[in-house]
Amino acid sequence: MRIVVDAMGGDYAPQNVIAGVVEAVKEFNVTIVLVGDEQQVRSHLAKYSYPKEKIEIVHATEVVGMKDQATDVIRKKRDCSITVGVNLLKEPGYDAFISAGNTGACVAAATFFLRMIEGVDRPGIGLVIPQLENGVSFLIDVGANTEPKPEHMYQYGQMARVYAQSVLGKKDPTVGLVNIGEEEGKGSGFEKQAYQLMQDKLPCFIGNVEPNEIFVGKADCIVATGFVGNVIIKVTEGVLESASKLIKREVKKSPFAMLGALFMLGALKKVKKQADYSEYGGAPLLGVNGIVMISHGRSTPKAIKSAIRSTMREVDHKILDKMRSAVVGTQV
Amino acid sequence: MRIVVDAMGGDYAPQNVIAGVVEAVKEFNVTIVLVGDEQQVRSHLAKYSYPKEKIEIVHATEVVGMKDQATDVIRKKRDCSITVGVNLLKEPGYDAFISAGNTGACVAAATFFLRMIEGVDRPGIGLVIPQLENGVSFLIDVGANTEPKPEHMYQYGQMARVYAQSVLGKKDPTVGLVNIGEEEGKGSGFEKQAYQLMQDKLPCFIGNVEPNEIFVGKADCIVATGFVGNVIIKVTEGVLESASKLIKREVKKSPFAMLGALFMLGALKKVKKQADYSEYGGAPLLGVNGIVMISHGRSTPKAIKSAIRSTMREVDHKILDKMRSAVVGTQV
Repeated sequence: MRIVVDAMGGDYAPQNVIAGVVEAVKEFNVTIVLVGDEQQVRSHLAKYSYPKEKIEIVHATEVVGMKDQATDVIRKKRDCSITVGVNLLKEPGYDAFISAGNTGACVAAATFFLRMIEGVDRPGIGLVIPQLENGVSFLIDVGANTEPKPEHMYQYGQMARVYAQSVLGKKDPTVGLVNIGEEEGKGSGFEKQAYQLMQDKLPCFIGNVEPNEIFVGKADCIVATGFVGNVIIKVTEGVLESASKLIKREVKKSPFAMLGALFMLGALKKVKKQADYSEYGGAPLLGVNGIVMISHGRSTPKAIKSAIRSTMREVDHKILDKMRSAVVGTQV
Repeated sequence: MRIVVDAMGGDYAPQNVIAGVVEAVKEFNVTIVLVGDEQQVRSHLAKYSYPKEKIEIVHATEVVGMKDQATDVIRKKRDCSITVGVNLLKEPGYDAFISAGNTGACVAAATFFLRMIEGVDRPGIGLVIPQLENGVSFLIDVGANTEPKPEHMYQYGQMARVYAQSVLGKKDPTVGLVNIGEEEGKGSGFEKQAYQLMQDKLPCFIGNVEPNEIFVGKADCIVATGFVGNVIIKVTEGVLESASKLIKREVKKSPFAMLGALFMLGALKKVKKQADYSEYGGAPLLGVNGIVMISHGRSTPKAIKSAIRSTMREVDHKILDKMRSAVVGTQV
């Protein structure tokens, strides 16, 4: 298996990316193709010992920064690591692409150069999220498509179901729609139309999922607009961060509480680990003609390694073939 | 001061409402007008001792349930407690209305019978939310208007500023817009238009607030669409609930952790109290020609009492007059 990794993507690139890649090739049966400034990549790689034949380098002269326009990858910076990396997937022998760089740029490049699979109009970014009782669920879209049409929501439901079935190993995954009320007929006109379409065409559709039910295992696949999905993950991140800061502040005020926290350390770590969906390492971009994984801009080496492992799972499960055959013929 | 309270609104009405009202009249300088089924209200009141002259009853024959259509208050059930209560505000001597009943029905009744104040097109529900470092902020809209226009967002910014200034005592409150990116030009076409309008017309506008920044004091007033605002508060509720369940579960697995939790009890309670925005008791409905407060359907007697206290503060600060004079003349 050969996975292309954007060496220049992310807030701590290339160092974190390369550290994660080195760990991955030592541990997994995979060859990594690093795309980026060859000189920089070589000088970072020189710090590590690893099986040399398992890391290849493809030179790219440009880098897309976090502040660049997403469409720069198509128009202005065609020799950037994202564009070069995505285009490698069109050649035989390259199985997937991973980037921790500019998310919008990854979506634009993948959509433009790889095109969509038949039956899907817009790409969506999925995210595996922990459930309190019931393993994990799959939330889509978390930010690729901020102005979707109702039929896109239905297509996300289809793709999420394939993903949950093959990659997450769920037998007969259910699909729910994020809405601000449980009953049919809640939300705006958009939600009503999406609800109707999914109810008519998805046999596994279980109806609305309220935002406070995202983490309680109500549905295996949870469909939201890119805007709302993004709000959900960012609010979750913010609340957990604020709550843990508050706890730390309160605990510091009392020696008894500090002692208590010490005893609870193990339990708190387990909770943190379960809540930390960056453990999964990345978010798959679904709908394009290629396996593309988007990692967090602040990815640690461990997150990069996790993203490689998750991507390998997608390749192993032939997720792209499965998606193509499941989604074809289900158009509105 | 005379405040009208919907005796029949909420999952535990009339008992929780009446228990809260009795506590309030004992403690505060206020007269409460309970609207609802007179016989039921009297039989519940009979259980308590309280200053009799401080609670009046106005009979209403019907009740709007949580599953009823919002517009039933206007069309079918014109003698329900919400409609009767809201209409009392049109008579002299009634200062405000509080209901823990069907939110949509309260919004519909208030909008239809009280009409909007000049310069505001749609009502919005605000919510006082805790900030990690900086007291509280004011989030609007959390669910009244799920399909707003950009100018509604600007109007919410105006009203929030008046509220934060007069009721929350902030000197020169800042206003931010919820968006999935910090820079201008992020989000969908709707967000871009709202951003432009607020930047042009609100001197206190500080730009976008990302959903992970809602609780870190970035802005005093945070404006969102009703859909997104509702998602924010429900995700927050869900995450805190899931996190505390997870902690409890992990703690139960180890006697050391249980001992630790015991030591930390005080600290954990403080955190819970700070995170619990139901402490405030209700969410003001802004934009209508009357002071209306919407309480949570699951309100405890304590929450009802808090809602009465918050509403008294609004009346004391003449919030309605201030809003009328601040918003008039600022139309797009």
